[in-house]
Amino acid sequence: MKKIFIAAIGLLLLDPFSISAQSGKSGKVFDELTLTSKILKSERKYAVYLPPDYESSGRSYPVLYLLHGAGDDQTGWVQFGEVLNITDKAIAEGTATPMIIVMPDANTGRRGYFNDIKGDWNYEDFFFTELMPFVEKKYRAKTDKRSRAIAGLSMGGGGTFMYALHRPEMFSSACPLSASVGPVTLEDAKKSIQRNNANIADSAVTNYYNRHSAIALINNMPDSQKKAVRWYIDCGDDDFLYEGNALVHIALRKKEVPHEFRVRDGGHSWTYWRGSLPKVLEFVSDAFHQF
Amino acid sequence: MKKIFIAAIGLLLLDPFSISAQSGKSGKVFDELTLTSKILKSERKYAVYLPPDYESSGRSYPVLYLLHGAGDDQTGWVQFGEVLNITDKAIAEGTATPMIIVMPDANTGRRGYFNDIKGDWNYEDFFFTELMPFVEKKYRAKTDKRSRAIAGLSMGGGGTFMYALHRPEMFSSACPLSASVGPVTLEDAKKSIQRNNANIADSAVTNYYNRHSAIALINNMPDSQKKAVRWYIDCGDDDFLYEGNALVHIALRKKEVPHEFRVRDGGHSWTYWRGSLPKVLEFVSDAFHQF
Amino acid sequence: MKKIFIAAIGLLLLDPFSISAQSGKSGKVFDELTLTSKILKSERKYAVYLPPDYESSGRSYPVLYLLHGAGDDQTGWVQFGEVLNITDKAIAEGTATPMIIVMPDANTGRRGYFNDIKGDWNYEDFFFTELMPFVEKKYRAKTDKRSRAIAGLSMGGGGTFMYALHRPEMFSSACPLSASVGPVTLEDAKKSIQRNNANIADSAVTNYYNRHSAIALINNMPDSQKKAVRWYIDCGDDDFLYEGNALVHIALRKKEVPHEFRVRDGGHSWTYWRGSLPKVLEFVSDAFHQF
Amino acid sequence: MKKIFIAAIGLLLLDPFSISAQSGKSGKVFDELTLTSKILKSERKYAVYLPPDYESSGRSYPVLYLLHGAGDDQTGWVQFGEVLNITDKAIAEGTATPMIIVMPDANTGRRGYFNDIKGDWNYEDFFFTELMPFVEKKYRAKTDKRSRAIAGLSMGGGGTFMYALHRPEMFSSACPLSASVGPVTLEDAKKSIQRNNANIADSAVTNYYNRHSAIALINNMPDSQKKAVRWYIDCGDDDFLYEGNALVHIALRKKEVPHEFRVRDGGHSWTYWRGSLPKVLEFVSDAFHQF
Repeated sequence: MKKIFIAAIGLLLLDPFSISAQSGKSGKVFDELTLTSKILKSERKYAVYLPPDYESSGRSYPVLYLLHGAGDDQTGWVQFGEVLNITDKAIAEGTATPMIIVMPDANTGRRGYFNDIKGDWNYEDFFFTELMPFVEKKYRAKTDKRSRAIAGLSMGGGGTFMYALHRPEMFSSACPLSASVGPVTLEDAKKSIQRNNANIADSAVTNYYNRHSAIALINNMPDSQKKAVRWYIDCGDDDFLYEGNALVHIALRKKEVPHEFRVRDGGHSWTYWRGSLPKVLEFVSDAFHQF
Repeated sequence: MKKIFIAAIGLLLLDPFSISAQSGKSGKVFDELTLTSKILKSERKYAVYLPPDYESSGRSYPVLYLLHGAGDDQTGWVQFGEVLNITDKAIAEGTATPMIIVMPDANTGRRGYFNDIKGDWNYEDFFFTELMPFVEKKYRAKTDKRSRAIAGLSMGGGGTFMYALHRPEMFSSACPLSASVGPVTLEDAKKSIQRNNANIADSAVTNYYNRHSAIALINNMPDSQKKAVRWYIDCGDDDFLYEGNALVHIALRKKEVPHEFRVRDGGHSWTYWRGSLPKVLEFVSDAFHQF
Repeated sequence: MKKIFIAAIGLLLLDPFSISAQSGKSGKVFDELTLTSKILKSERKYAVYLPPDYESSGRSYPVLYLLHGAGDDQTGWVQFGEVLNITDKAIAEGTATPMIIVMPDANTGRRGYFNDIKGDWNYEDFFFTELMPFVEKKYRAKTDKRSRAIAGLSMGGGGTFMYALHRPEMFSSACPLSASVGPVTLEDAKKSIQRNNANIADSAVTNYYNRHSAIALINNMPDSQKKAVRWYIDCGDDDFLYEGNALVHIALRKKEVPHEFRVRDGGHSWTYWRGSLPKVLEFVSDAFHQF
Repeated sequence: MKKIFIAAIGLLLLDPFSISAQSGKSGKVFDELTLTSKILKSERKYAVYLPPDYESSGRSYPVLYLLHGAGDDQTGWVQFGEVLNITDKAIAEGTATPMIIVMPDANTGRRGYFNDIKGDWNYEDFFFTELMPFVEKKYRAKTDKRSRAIAGLSMGGGGTFMYALHRPEMFSSACPLSASVGPVTLEDAKKSIQRNNANIADSAVTNYYNRHSAIALINNMPDSQKKAVRWYIDCGDDDFLYEGNALVHIALRKKEVPHEFRVRDGGHSWTYWRGSLPKVLEFVSDAFHQF
């Protein structure tokens, strides 16, 4: 028995994951919670991660909004992304500060994080005027800009780009992963939108493009906004979304917008995003913590 | 076999994170508590850290008063200073003894830890005659000098200096970090005070200077007080407050007042103070343990 | 005996530095060697790394050609790049196979790795018809394609691109680091060349562009060449050469040329390249081992 | 049993000294070497450290000049400072680059590193016009500014200050440890010099002060010199030389001369300097390496 105990200690030292597994300090995840949305005229699901000391303490916490990709829902980061184990471990190791993580569903009714071009499904409005106030009331959440961050993968990386570019006063950090960055040119936007909706006017497409192309938003960014948000952008070298992300890096560099950019080994996969999440938690904590 | 077992223990000691993670023993932090102050005619906020075994034991604990800087409030050491994780870890590792940590707000109403020169806002009186008795009644706190310590950063480092220099009978240890040490000379005091308050008399400034300049208080210190308080003073080489702290070190050396002085790599930042906190906990514990 | 053996294995597996330190096996570096070049009409310097068992064994070794950047010479990878310690360590750990590393000077006489546009300084001819045969005769070098690789930084990354794109039959792997990729468009080429040499004809510039623009060479690559060379391309997100490297990544992806691409945290600095070198050694060894 | 033994190996890994002890890669130290000085009309002793790969490689190395304190000689850093073990370990761990370390004797004939005020003992002239050229010829030394550094303790810290302030074009880094910084004021200089030499004229003292007071040299430093040398200054909080070093830190900050300053726990002792040496090796290597 003694030998086994000693062996276990050895493991603790050598394999970080075993620590987390044996740890007595675990956060909690709930993945089938709901709130009512007037804007979307429905019950909306969300998942939440609460840090290990949430229940025992009386303090308030910073909040990370973590968005899933197309074809997935609020359970994606919980089931495939290992948000519980990875965040518990990062907090135990001190690379992340205790935080609340909110993962809303953008798959029910319609798919996506944006206000629809036709104006009858306004998910972005729901996010800022219903979901965030709900979260900041229901949970012991800090409510200043520094204490809010946003991240997401693929379609949720697109949501991360647009939300933080539209509302830089709301988030200290934004981390689009393997992001869909929106149409690179207006022509691309016209092709992809009018192919499916022939009767949408050019002016509507132009408006939509100016608001949903990361590159257009970066190129039109006023100087005062350049340092408003801390950016961490990550896309694998085998990802099919490589081009948009590389062009966003170039656009940000030319515009002199400070940002971190990473290309690691891998494709559009949860293996890649489970590798990204610890970096995201550390990066957003740098702002939550203050330097 | 015994040797081998000792090796395993050694392992436990050498990897702090695995211990803390494994122990499952977490203290608690509350950051929006209040008490009523007659002196300041208001509700005053404070945060508190209670050690892991506080609820399960019936024993009493030593108390560290931990002061925030200007522009911050009682939540600063909780959110940015990681007081919960760092203290849990130090206690688990045995470098700190279990203690209560009290973090009062000095940002509401007016900013600062001192009795105002005009006499209508007496925070220092509040601290000694209302806050400390309240804490020692509400919590299972030890109430002898050996069991009390004070520390703080920047403006709170100034509070630490003045409280421990004014009331050396109250604290066994004092740890000013990146401290604002007060005016170096009477002329500096006159300039900074009378610039904003032209009608304050020279004599009032002199009185204020004698009471709020760390260097004046050190130079005027009676011999009997020299060893009354254990000092740990720390200020980064890139900190804008470098000069006052270096001059305090010189003044203490010339006056032969025992003290620890550290200059590490860094500026006026939470990264620096998160690096200082484990040392502060260890230093104050040396007195809590045995004097 | 078994116990001791296990101890040694443990050390090997767990602490890379202890291995290198313990093994006592060190390669050798010479950084002021020379060969005579008829093509360049001068003595040319080079540095060489020989693996730890070079002298004691009678075997032959694969060769990595490792190119310095502009303003540096054959000593750069030795002094600033820590090629000796890093390669010894990689070999001891088993991430790299023992190899010879040749570092030629491209700074004396004229600067650069290419045949000059005017045709009177043909460094690339020197490299393939004088240096490589010299190396393969003087040292116990393997001489098949699989056993040759090329890597380099900045201007030497440009050399790496062009040599491996011009002569894909010569190298199994090519690793341009923070590379100067050549002019992106013919217009860029005209501007930069004719600014300094007004009398160079457009046709000469076009020829030069087609031969010294990585993007032109990739776009014109015949299908048969696409898998001829294994590519590892790495450029920091703060590097001033970010754009060319990102555009090369896009061009290779569109052309469906397999390659590794990395963007790590950092700029155009030796700190970055010391971080790249272990990856380069591992990557080229994957082909040296087995293709 | 096997498992348990592996745990014990873990311990070995966690103690860096055990690695170094087992290491097969060791540099060499010679501590009774000599050169002939015409300026000092005598044989001068020196010690030298050569890195582990010095004999097997043909490359050249950067040089650190490392000065002893008063009452000691060229053997001090060897015997008491553990220069061999500490440098071998730093190189094996990769925190320092392989370098030559030269330790000259400044104790024979007369004591000290300066040209004497009376002009008949010119050690500083010997250092720059005899010792350095001798070293750069006898050993495979790099001879550019970036590849030279100077450090020293106490009286040798004073030598470090004056040499690097007099000849900023000669060294990339300077590391005075627990340094004697020279007279703080001209009055101090007069007192200390004329006490022993009543007949030395005031003007000679003034000249001497302007050349041998670190504070005078800093205050008179031209702007062009401010970033010429990288400074690492370290003096314990219990050192009797605390005041001069703290005042130099203040003077450098006010003059906006970039520098590192450290105050660690300790006095004027070899325990302190053995703690400083690894930092010095790392700091000078940052310039030897290039960033």
